Amino acid sequence: MRIARTLEEYAPHVGEKVIAEIYEHARKLYGTKIVHINSTYQGGGVAEMLLSLVPLMNYVGLEAEWRIISGRTEFFNVTKRIHNCLQGESGELTPEEQELHIRTNETFSEYTKIEHDAVIVHDPQPAPLIRFYKKRQPWIWRCHIDLSNPNTQVWSYLKQFILRYDRLIFSHEKYQPKNFPVKNYIIRPAIDPLIPKNQPLSDQEIEKLFKEFEIPTDKPIIAQVSRFDKWKDPEGVIDIFKQVKKEIDCRLILIGSMASDDPEGWQIYENVLKKAGSLIENREIILITIQHDLLVNAIQRKANVIIQKSLREGFGLTVTETLWKGRPVVASNVGGIPLQVKDGVNGFLLDPYDYTGFSEKIIYLLRHPETATRLGKAGKEIVREHFLITRLLKDYLKLLNDVFY
Amino acid sequence: MRIARTLEEYAPHVGEKVIAEIYEHARKLYGTKIVHINSTYQGGGVAEMLLSLVPLMNYVGLEAEWRIISGRTEFFNVTKRIHNCLQGESGELTPEEQELHIRTNETFSEYTKIEHDAVIVHDPQPAPLIRFYKKRQPWIWRCHIDLSNPNTQVWSYLKQFILRYDRLIFSHEKYQPKNFPVKNYIIRPAIDPLIPKNQPLSDQEIEKLFKEFEIPTDKPIIAQVSRFDKWKDPEGVIDIFKQVKKEIDCRLILIGSMASDDPEGWQIYENVLKKAGSLIENREIILITIQHDLLVNAIQRKANVIIQKSLREGFGLTVTETLWKGRPVVASNVGGIPLQVKDGVNGFLLDPYDYTGFSEKIIYLLRHPETATRLGKAGKEIVREHFLITRLLKDYLKLLNDVFY
Repeated sequence: MRIARTLEEYAPHVGEKVIAEIYEHARKLYGTKIVHINSTYQGGGVAEMLLSLVPLMNYVGLEAEWRIISGRTEFFNVTKRIHNCLQGESGELTPEEQELHIRTNETFSEYTKIEHDAVIVHDPQPAPLIRFYKKRQPWIWRCHIDLSNPNTQVWSYLKQFILRYDRLIFSHEKYQPKNFPVKNYIIRPAIDPLIPKNQPLSDQEIEKLFKEFEIPTDKPIIAQVSRFDKWKDPEGVIDIFKQVKKEIDCRLILIGSMASDDPEGWQIYENVLKKAGSLIENREIILITIQHDLLVNAIQRKANVIIQKSLREGFGLTVTETLWKGRPVVASNVGGIPLQVKDGVNGFLLDPYDYTGFSEKIIYLLRHPETATRLGKAGKEIVREHFLITRLLKDYLKLLNDVFY
Repeated sequence: MRIARTLEEYAPHVGEKVIAEIYEHARKLYGTKIVHINSTYQGGGVAEMLLSLVPLMNYVGLEAEWRIISGRTEFFNVTKRIHNCLQGESGELTPEEQELHIRTNETFSEYTKIEHDAVIVHDPQPAPLIRFYKKRQPWIWRCHIDLSNPNTQVWSYLKQFILRYDRLIFSHEKYQPKNFPVKNYIIRPAIDPLIPKNQPLSDQEIEKLFKEFEIPTDKPIIAQVSRFDKWKDPEGVIDIFKQVKKEIDCRLILIGSMASDDPEGWQIYENVLKKAGSLIENREIILITIQHDLLVNAIQRKANVIIQKSLREGFGLTVTETLWKGRPVVASNVGGIPLQVKDGVNGFLLDPYDYTGFSEKIIYLLRHPETATRLGKAGKEIVREHFLITRLLKDYLKLLNDVFY
């Protein structure tokens, strides 16, 4: 809940040098008024990052705020389609849908003054805002999605707003739109090591959580932490688990919160139930749908192997979380996962349809716990260096220095 | 969607004198920075009023903004209990629940600067915010609920924040807390005559909407516009309808949107289905759960009688909406309804358990359409004078003048 911390609390994780560098980059920015605008205070990686980033920006001397644009269900249906189309799905936006997107932004502008020194707009939902303000400061569009191969019609609709921005930010070199003339930066996502989902847990705390949720620990544990979503392929995970179980007796945990308004999610969940069959009654497969950050944390720390069998992935922050806990990951070679997992160094990368490969690697790690530990350690160091919130903060400060000076 | 209008557009409804008075009251407030804070951008009367009020405040020369405090589901579970307990339900808040309420407010304060000239906080959800800001301006707590008989424990918890406010606003003299030393005002809720739910509709437009939703118009129509909620007693409405139908052949429409996260609502809906039985298949009773403002508008205009059989009611803005459409209301004598409905003048007031009384009055109005028209006209004039958004705007301006000068 309460997440504002001192920057110094991060020193044990990242070293004092990083802390000093952050202050150095903040020096010219004292009192600079920044506003972040996205579309939700919770749910998803963007909100999670802002929840940590904004108070840290304030802590180092900026004046940072965070606003959300809100809209009716129809608005979010349209922006979800924009999102999917920008990532390459077919379809198009009708003039009415475009109008709804634009008008919701206009309405929001009637309730919200912007007198900041810089504006950072996240993702397509609030992108049209730029049209409804007198521009008195740099506007930065922070895009968390892959624009390398967008649906042409939707991208050409969105471009009319994006062209007005002064800077763009992408998570990955490969996600940049082709031949787009606005100056852009790469800033990779990050996790906060001090929030409940990632904070250190003692063995006793882990044990207590497993007892509380009645998860037995008498066998090795494989886990996937992901929503019940077709792109996370939980059914495929069960197939792989069945193959693994022929060789080694172990247990599978699938944990992922469910959006109450996501009928597709419940359908996937039903399929998983059917596929798992009696394994669920025997507690050989354990499905958990409640949202409980400490439990996720405990499972990521306790599992012998974490699997991430995504068919598609954005950056894959659940992988980052796992690596941070020093556990090896057997994961699909998709999206941002290969930025984090080096095959054989801190986990294994596989074609998402290579079921045999997945089960072999899992069996290998279960049989060679010392290798699992070594890979896990390597993963933690990669996250420490590249994917913690302090690095994200520093990147933003560098960008703002670049914009202003 | 787009709701900012000129104030002059209201002149045909309220007269030019009212418009001139509003400008008069705004004169000393030009450039005054106001922020409204509540907990949702949509759903419920508070959001609906702010959606119209904030742009109008800007239009007359203030600098008004609107922010929402957001929280996780647990936060809203706690604030819903606070709400119910303040209205008199038994129960108490555990220290953990109080902590969650307070911490969510504290977190929000880390993302949101307040440098306005006055702060208007709506209802209990964001009330603790006042503790987390250096007070540099008057803070006003606008309470939309009935505090006349609150649960003692919960009120004594909330009081520690409310005491810090400079002014309080209630909707009704009777809703004020007893012996509470902060200066307070009465401002009644209001509706906006220009939004889709209330805007003028031609007969052709009404007919088109009825056709679109396949609602036959061959018989007189009785309707209740309200969520499927135990306090709105839709089952009681069906009992009354059955009594009426013995005397006069007519049709009942129940229209109310359903919150997807409200299992109780669906249970009530199921009970209604069961109770209505074959009347639903025959389209003698029509249930509508989609949210469609223009359809609500059309039904309120087309119905021969509108019923509001609430067992409890806040102010009852659906009654205000109906009266504005010149239709007579047969309503329970609870909450804010008697502020709007004068028995025999613009509708009828009854004890909510007086089923016979309800059906007699409905039958009377169906048999005497000229009386129905006369009552409806009287209701429209009451709303015009007391319950339109222009009056609400004027009240806020008067209050701000009083606070500042």
